[in-house]
Amino acid sequence: MDIPPLDVESMLACRHRLDALSKPLGSLGLLEEFAVRLAGMRGEVGGQLERRTVLVFAADNGIHAQGITSVPQEVTARQSELIASGGAGVGVLARQADAQVFIYDVGIAGPVHTSVANRRVMDGTRDMTQGPAMTPEEFFSAFDVGVQAVREHADAGIIGVGEMGICNTSAASAVGAALLGLPADEVVGPGAGIDAQELEKKKAAICRALAVNAPDPANPSEVAACVGSLDLAAMAGAFTQCARQRIPAVIDGCISACAALVAVRMEPEVRNYLFGSHQSTEPVFACILHALGLEAPLHLHMRLGEGSGTPLMFELLAASLAVVNDMATLEDAQINGEAFVDLRQQ
Amino acid sequence: MDIPPLDVESMLACRHRLDALSKPLGSLGLLEEFAVRLAGMRGEVGGQLERRTVLVFAADNGIHAQGITSVPQEVTARQSELIASGGAGVGVLARQADAQVFIYDVGIAGPVHTSVANRRVMDGTRDMTQGPAMTPEEFFSAFDVGVQAVREHADAGIIGVGEMGICNTSAASAVGAALLGLPADEVVGPGAGIDAQELEKKKAAICRALAVNAPDPANPSEVAACVGSLDLAAMAGAFTQCARQRIPAVIDGCISACAALVAVRMEPEVRNYLFGSHQSTEPVFACILHALGLEAPLHLHMRLGEGSGTPLMFELLAASLAVVNDMATLEDAQINGEAFVDLRQQ
Repeated sequence: MDIPPLDVESMLACRHRLDALSKPLGSLGLLEEFAVRLAGMRGEVGGQLERRTVLVFAADNGIHAQGITSVPQEVTARQSELIASGGAGVGVLARQADAQVFIYDVGIAGPVHTSVANRRVMDGTRDMTQGPAMTPEEFFSAFDVGVQAVREHADAGIIGVGEMGICNTSAASAVGAALLGLPADEVVGPGAGIDAQELEKKKAAICRALAVNAPDPANPSEVAACVGSLDLAAMAGAFTQCARQRIPAVIDGCISACAALVAVRMEPEVRNYLFGSHQSTEPVFACILHALGLEAPLHLHMRLGEGSGTPLMFELLAASLAVVNDMATLEDAQINGEAFVDLRQQ
Repeated sequence: MDIPPLDVESMLACRHRLDALSKPLGSLGLLEEFAVRLAGMRGEVGGQLERRTVLVFAADNGIHAQGITSVPQEVTARQSELIASGGAGVGVLARQADAQVFIYDVGIAGPVHTSVANRRVMDGTRDMTQGPAMTPEEFFSAFDVGVQAVREHADAGIIGVGEMGICNTSAASAVGAALLGLPADEVVGPGAGIDAQELEKKKAAICRALAVNAPDPANPSEVAACVGSLDLAAMAGAFTQCARQRIPAVIDGCISACAALVAVRMEPEVRNYLFGSHQSTEPVFACILHALGLEAPLHLHMRLGEGSGTPLMFELLAASLAVVNDMATLEDAQINGEAFVDLRQQ
């Protein structure tokens, strides 16, 4: 299925309207860029941001066996249940932004409550320090979980893409390093929070995984299968399907950004339908966003994951549409009998 | 009137609750810091952010006579009327964040519609390149306009402080340079938008104003009277009164930040009640926020003024309260019969 091109006419019409508003040209900065890009994606100038949706993909990682974190693997299942119940961070922030959260089990290792939608491909990946984390078939099955999840929410006005999975920043760092051609030990960070000793172990394990698998950087699905994670694969599928259905998609943190990079390397036009949200503190994040040519306007030092940064971005995108919908133009001011003054050069 | 100290007990209680939530310690970054600071200001852990208010102060500047911009001075009056009508940028963004906007004429130079509340101290400042922009009495009258405006909105849960006034970034840059001991031509930027030739003229005029007045940097009200603006003075009063009434106050862009700096130099405890919002593109802005020890989490390249960045920050502050109010604790998870796992070290 092809990805539709951006609607350039709507983008130009949106730019034209923004430049006619009663403000200095370009003075609303990225809010203006967001409005123009939304117009291109949606084929509509302004409008509302309805049925705001966050899709969360959960899975476990075989690399956990390497002892790179003291957090038990079972946390993936328990926290996924909490996300399903609405009590986790992403649920609270989503309700604030009038958004709904849906969580999918792509490959949790143990039993999990039925409130987490069962789309399990396997019981966690294999240990990537010993060989490929997934076969190509397993990767594409997980990718398809993301595709189908977006199909289920085809009426969403915006989709945020998040994850839950102990050790998945290890997978994301390995994939990011391989795809960007960066030394792994430079882009690996502490994730949600491990100590200095665990960090050294984590760096060494990721270097080992890359050496053992030696995936071809020109083959993004091979990279993501060998050293990625099931949640990352599903997120790549979700970003791809959003683009196919012209649904604007919002990146959360490090793993989400890495999944977006995989999707864009597989199909470059996916990039047209992406927004950054918050600036993750993981080192690989900034490299990926730079490679994607995207900005993350929220500098909040967040490192929770779960898609928790995406609802905050929904509100900025809604604000950008409100500017287009509701701000007075210079012409409006004239019509209302006020002196016409060209503020655009202020 | 004294500024009450922060409620340290509420801050500790808030920190304690944040650390008990089902997430890695500190992983919500600045949202956690916002919640703790709000608890200290309000003496309440969590809670709602009600009666969200933006106060906008409008005034003209005598330095306009130096020809540093091609924008006519009348734009201050016309755009102030548009702000009063709700059609300007700040009004649109405020409605999105469930906030109300109030605008005050502190010293517009010409006639203005009665929808702009008349608190006029004088018809614009004098040209600061020729001598003081205001007498000390005029400065304190304008300061008091801000104080009284906050008194009128004493039930506000949060107050954003903005401005409208052609040439007021010149005043703010001069005040900022003087108070921070920085060379004026390094901190002067293009404001809402002037060309390269106008920028050189602006820098030269500001250097002249500082040389002619030579205000004492240790005397913030003298600096702000000599090379400031009426809107800046009123904003300094508003920030001061917010602190006295324990109302959290949000800084907008360059002029707002500079007014906050004046207020803090006059009474250091004002700082405790301040939040940054968006990162202004004006060079002096980053210097001021650094001096105040505050962060501006929204990186949107905005340069509109009017208080337009503050409603976006209201939503982040409301999100920080929602985290405290609504997120599940690790203990909740245990009570619900789920396995207790200490995610805090994740």
